[in-house]
Amino acid sequence: MVKLVYLNSKYVKFQNAKIHIEDRGLQFSDSIYEVIPFYNKKLIDLIFHIKRLKFSLKELNINYIINLNTFKKIFLKLINNHNSKNGLIYLQITRGIQHRDHSYIKNLKPNIIIYILNRKLNFSKNTLKGVNAITCEDLRWKRRDIKSTSLLANVLAKNKATSKKAYEAILIDKGKITEATASNVWIVKNNKLITHPANTDILKGVTRETIKQLILKNNLKFIEKYFTLKQMYEADEVFITSSGNFVTPIIKVDSIKINKSKIGKITYKLAKLYSDSFING
Amino acid sequence: MVKLVYLNSKYVKFQNAKIHIEDRGLQFSDSIYEVIPFYNKKLIDLIFHIKRLKFSLKELNINYIINLNTFKKIFLKLINNHNSKNGLIYLQITRGIQHRDHSYIKNLKPNIIIYILNRKLNFSKNTLKGVNAITCEDLRWKRRDIKSTSLLANVLAKNKATSKKAYEAILIDKGKITEATASNVWIVKNNKLITHPANTDILKGVTRETIKQLILKNNLKFIEKYFTLKQMYEADEVFITSSGNFVTPIIKVDSIKINKSKIGKITYKLAKLYSDSFING
Repeated sequence: MVKLVYLNSKYVKFQNAKIHIEDRGLQFSDSIYEVIPFYNKKLIDLIFHIKRLKFSLKELNINYIINLNTFKKIFLKLINNHNSKNGLIYLQITRGIQHRDHSYIKNLKPNIIIYILNRKLNFSKNTLKGVNAITCEDLRWKRRDIKSTSLLANVLAKNKATSKKAYEAILIDKGKITEATASNVWIVKNNKLITHPANTDILKGVTRETIKQLILKNNLKFIEKYFTLKQMYEADEVFITSSGNFVTPIIKVDSIKINKSKIGKITYKLAKLYSDSFING
Repeated sequence: MVKLVYLNSKYVKFQNAKIHIEDRGLQFSDSIYEVIPFYNKKLIDLIFHIKRLKFSLKELNINYIINLNTFKKIFLKLINNHNSKNGLIYLQITRGIQHRDHSYIKNLKPNIIIYILNRKLNFSKNTLKGVNAITCEDLRWKRRDIKSTSLLANVLAKNKATSKKAYEAILIDKGKITEATASNVWIVKNNKLITHPANTDILKGVTRETIKQLILKNNLKFIEKYFTLKQMYEADEVFITSSGNFVTPIIKVDSIKINKSKIGKITYKLAKLYSDSFING
C-alpha cells in the first residue's frame, strides 16, 4: 500500500510530498500543528484538537478557516489507506510561501500537510509500562500555549533524554516544573493530583483536558498549581499525558525512584479510565 | 535570467526548489542559517559568517563539515547568475529528513539550501537614512546565540513593528534591551558606545563584530553592558547593525525622538567607516 500525504487539496505519494524552500514554516517556524490519535479507526478527542488548532491559527493570525467535515473526510481517507487501525495523524499548517522577510504578508495562502505518522501508539489495552525521565532547563520561548513548530528547545531536551536512555525530559523554568518536551506532567501527593496551570508557560494538552474531566467525574482530588523539582522527587506518583502517550507512568526521575519504581494506584486508575473511554466509547 | 537555487549539490530552478515534508527544519525548526551580503560581487565578512555557521552546527550537533572553497564556488556561481552586483546570500542547513520524532537520529544527511534573496540591500553609498523602531517583550527561546530558524518570536515582533509603520522591533527581556528582531542594538551616551554583551541572550552579529573592530581601530569609547529602555530613550544616538542593515540609525523609539530625529555624529562616522571598508577594501 502506498503511503499517502494530503498536501494542499491533493493526495500525493509520501516520497513526493514536498514543499517550496520559501515556505515560512521552513524558514521561520511560522507554522502550527496537531497530532491526533485514532483507535480502531476512530479519532480520539477530535473536537479538542480542532479547538486548539483554531486557537493557534488565531494567535498567529494565520489566514485559514477550518472546515471540520472536510478534515474528517481527509482523516478517514488516510486512515482507510493505512495499514493499522490505530495510529497518529499529523496535521501541519504553515503561514504559506513568501519571499523571505521576517514580516509576513497578510492573507498568504497557507500550506496544509496531513499524513499518518510512522509510529506505534504508546498504548496497550492490558499492560501499562512505567518509564524513566530526566530533568533539564526549559529553554523554550514564552508562548508555549501556541502549538507551533518552533520546537528546537524541545528537540534538544528530548535528545538529551534519549542519550541518557530516558523516555522523556521534564522541563524546569525558574525552579518550577512546566511540562515535558511533548507531554504534560502530573504528580500525586497524598491522593491529590497536581499539574501546572494552563497559562502561556505550557501547552494546554488535549489529553490533559480529558483527564481533568475524568478526575472531576470520578471525584478525585485535583489542583492546578506550580510544583518544584523537590516536590516531584518526593511525590507518591508521577505521570505524563499526551495524545501519543495517553497516561504514561514515570517511575524514575533523574536518579530518584518514584513510588519504589512501581506504577501508582491513581496513575493506573486514570490510565484505565482514559483508555476505557475510547475503547468502549 | 532563471533564478537558481543550490539544493544538495544540484542547481535547480527557484520554483522547483522543494524539500520533503519530513525535513526536520520544517517540522521542528531543527535547522540553522546565515545571510551573507555581497557588494560589487564581493562577499562581505565571509569568514565571520562561516565561523558562526560552524558554531551553530556544533551547538546543535548537526553532522556537516563545511568546505569553504566549495561554498565560495557556489556563492560565486549564484552571484554571477544574479541580476545585480549587490545582494544577500541565504544559506540554510537543516538536520535532514527523518520520520517525525522529537529525538533525532545521529548523522542524518543534512539538507543544504543556498540562494540569493529577493531583497535590496539597505545601503546607500552617499545617503544614510534614519528609521523608527518600536519596543516589545522578548519572547524568544534562551539560546539566541545559535542562528537557528526557530524565529517565530522574531516574526511576531517584526510584524508588530510593520503594522505600526516602524522599521524594527527592539526586544526587552526583564527590563534589559537584548537586541532587535534581526539586528543588534547600540546606544551612544556622552560619546561612549554601548551594546549588550555577547552571551546566550543575543545573537553575536557579524556586523556587530566588524563594528567593534572599527571602534577599537578608531579609538572610540566602547563598553559591552546591559542597558534599559529608559537609557535608550535618553541616549544621544541609537542605531542597529546587521548583515542586511549594515549601520542603520534609529531616530525614534516608540514615541520618543532620539537626537531630535537627526542621525548622530558617531552613528554617521561608523556607517561611513563600515561601508568604506568594503567599498574600498
